[in-house]
Amino acid sequence: MKIIANDPNRKTWLKVDKNSDFPIQNIPFGVFLTRDDIITIGTRIGDYAIDLGALHQLGYFKDIPLTDDMFLQDTLNDFIADGRITWRLVRNRIAEIFDENNTVLKDNIEHRNRIIFTMDEVEMQLPITIGDYTDFYSSKEHATNVGSIFRGSENALMPNWLHIPIGYHGRSSSIITSGTPIRRPKGQMKPKGSVEPIFGPSKLVDFELEMAFITTDVNKLGETIKLEEAEDYIFGMVLLNDWSARDIQGWEYAPLGPFLGKSFASTISPWIVTMDALEPFRTKSPIQEPTPLPYLKQVGDRSFDINLQVIVQPENGEENIVAKSNFKYMYWTMAQQLTHHTSNGCNVRAGDMMGSGTLSGPTKESYGSMLELTWGGKNPIKLKDGSERKFINDNDTVTLRGYCENENVRIGFGDCSGRLIENY
Amino acid sequence: MKIIANDPNRKTWLKVDKNSDFPIQNIPFGVFLTRDDIITIGTRIGDYAIDLGALHQLGYFKDIPLTDDMFLQDTLNDFIADGRITWRLVRNRIAEIFDENNTVLKDNIEHRNRIIFTMDEVEMQLPITIGDYTDFYSSKEHATNVGSIFRGSENALMPNWLHIPIGYHGRSSSIITSGTPIRRPKGQMKPKGSVEPIFGPSKLVDFELEMAFITTDVNKLGETIKLEEAEDYIFGMVLLNDWSARDIQGWEYAPLGPFLGKSFASTISPWIVTMDALEPFRTKSPIQEPTPLPYLKQVGDRSFDINLQVIVQPENGEENIVAKSNFKYMYWTMAQQLTHHTSNGCNVRAGDMMGSGTLSGPTKESYGSMLELTWGGKNPIKLKDGSERKFINDNDTVTLRGYCENENVRIGFGDCSGRLIENY
Repeated sequence: MKIIANDPNRKTWLKVDKNSDFPIQNIPFGVFLTRDDIITIGTRIGDYAIDLGALHQLGYFKDIPLTDDMFLQDTLNDFIADGRITWRLVRNRIAEIFDENNTVLKDNIEHRNRIIFTMDEVEMQLPITIGDYTDFYSSKEHATNVGSIFRGSENALMPNWLHIPIGYHGRSSSIITSGTPIRRPKGQMKPKGSVEPIFGPSKLVDFELEMAFITTDVNKLGETIKLEEAEDYIFGMVLLNDWSARDIQGWEYAPLGPFLGKSFASTISPWIVTMDALEPFRTKSPIQEPTPLPYLKQVGDRSFDINLQVIVQPENGEENIVAKSNFKYMYWTMAQQLTHHTSNGCNVRAGDMMGSGTLSGPTKESYGSMLELTWGGKNPIKLKDGSERKFINDNDTVTLRGYCENENVRIGFGDCSGRLIENY
Repeated sequence: MKIIANDPNRKTWLKVDKNSDFPIQNIPFGVFLTRDDIITIGTRIGDYAIDLGALHQLGYFKDIPLTDDMFLQDTLNDFIADGRITWRLVRNRIAEIFDENNTVLKDNIEHRNRIIFTMDEVEMQLPITIGDYTDFYSSKEHATNVGSIFRGSENALMPNWLHIPIGYHGRSSSIITSGTPIRRPKGQMKPKGSVEPIFGPSKLVDFELEMAFITTDVNKLGETIKLEEAEDYIFGMVLLNDWSARDIQGWEYAPLGPFLGKSFASTISPWIVTMDALEPFRTKSPIQEPTPLPYLKQVGDRSFDINLQVIVQPENGEENIVAKSNFKYMYWTMAQQLTHHTSNGCNVRAGDMMGSGTLSGPTKESYGSMLELTWGGKNPIKLKDGSERKFINDNDTVTLRGYCENENVRIGFGDCSGRLIENY
């Protein structure tokens, strides 16, 4: 099926800023609460939130096989479970409805009032019920940096790292949507020089610049999938800040991995940008040496050129871009991650989320965490207001941004933002 | 509120075998499919499955505040979310209905036919939708044994182990109910002596003898709970076989912990035995030295005396008891595990499940995994049919059993069983 929604020449009758993350070519999916306290599934064009529940009720999705309440839900899980053909039909139809040459909705003021909101009239919700959240560790630069900081540069990369996309199970209950404040976690830790562990607020709260992909129903328990088909099961992507308390993490993580150092909060951007919208931005992933085992061997462009930024903003202060990276630096691709995940027969369901791991790039400016940017706190970062940061302070807001751009179009993710609040 | 359901002198008008795991004093909760393909919530007395949906529809829960469809659901989550008072009212009422001196249902043949099934007429389902599954590592003997096998006896226990209930996030999608076959997982591993990793069926499939507890809604994100109140949030317990592929696990687990070596299957027993039913079997937990930090400090009897067994049965062969252990050997209690889990503000929801970790005891016969029983495969176990096992063979059935017993009553969990099937 043709992805006519991607037509770079299409213009819309809605007013859209030239630098918007959400041109008519994006058409992401999210869930929002309207002024009237109604929860609905929607999309976004420019700074307008489009109520797909109302659009469907008013007959605009005629001839597309959708259940009546498909969009009148508080999560996208059912829509995602419907599969790729449905997603394409709906995105294509939305593109048509808002095409500058289509006057049906444009000229129907009553319908427009029911369907179109400005973004400040709605409150974004977590777009999916996440059954399982897996976090990978797929940036070679990040794994090497963290290994160097903790174990020295000779043993930086574990012997398994170049052979498997290392990952672990994360906590799904504490995944929150952009804008939700994060309380500084307390926990047990053993500060350097201390003989006994102590309990108290973490002193080393960090961000992790990640992206995550959301799957449809992939396989039944005991079944596996092939790498070539893995991308068919990926609905879309979001930005992910995998907040980390380095002191809690450092004390607890051996031998079973990170636990409470991560599970206090993970922030995602509220709009899921579809893989279809990202299709024009395919690019190569890093050369893999040694060659992966056959079940992980891939051909073609399996990565995406997505520019990433991390912004730290002190209370009443300016925005400071502290890191610039790119999704394409990720060593293991999403197709490899998902294939590996099912290789043991583990079932993956609609609404499951898989994080990339921190997306550090090759240069110091591209490191995706304070741990790396300040090299374990040794080299603090100077902000515009003159203050320094080794890690994140109370009342700092951390924002991730991401966008793809070519000569025709810019597809972005919006803000993935959270403010750290104090904890006595 | 008095737990009149626990009255040890009560007899029921249903026929119950003296050694049944399910006397009138147990009244566990589960979900089953009836002959008529109806899914309902139920309880079990002796070898009878009681349809609580039908019981409620026919008015037997009059005066207990329950929604009309409380039991006509395919999971217990809503019932569990209702909290302890509801659980007690319902258990108490069920005890009254089936009390030998109560003839209301006993003499109503039409109602009995709608409410009471024999166990072979129903098909047990997974009783809950598990939002998050956490697995702890709380047997000191198990952690010491595994540490000794992998790192030598000097470094057996990690420095953090005596200070925090070590745990990690598990995979919830692959939790299955007793009776579901388990396909031997494939995966990447690096056998001893091999220079390069290989991919293929695991050769070292193991069981892990665990128990798990199920929570109600505990806290909102950012909130914590006190140890003294932690037990109020625990609904009940099940047996848990946390199947493990030791070769996959050994290659993948550094530095982020177990992943695909565990996520191919975790089997639970289908009846959730309530903490109320287990109350008469409270006992001390092991002495904790060093004393835990104040937030984990506990007084009183916080453990439970639950006898545990692991049975391995080859195809067409006899049952072999390969391990006998007890839940009371667990070093960190459920109250400590849950308190620690929320100490960073992580929210825990109704239907979340927390595993104990492998429940090994102090003697060789009480080790809860083949890894420990055969000491990494060095000392195979001999079965009654003359065959030997280092790990689990194709077509072997592994069954966990557990029960509490005093002079008055026996409360059991039924079978937690699964057969390993081959994978080419």
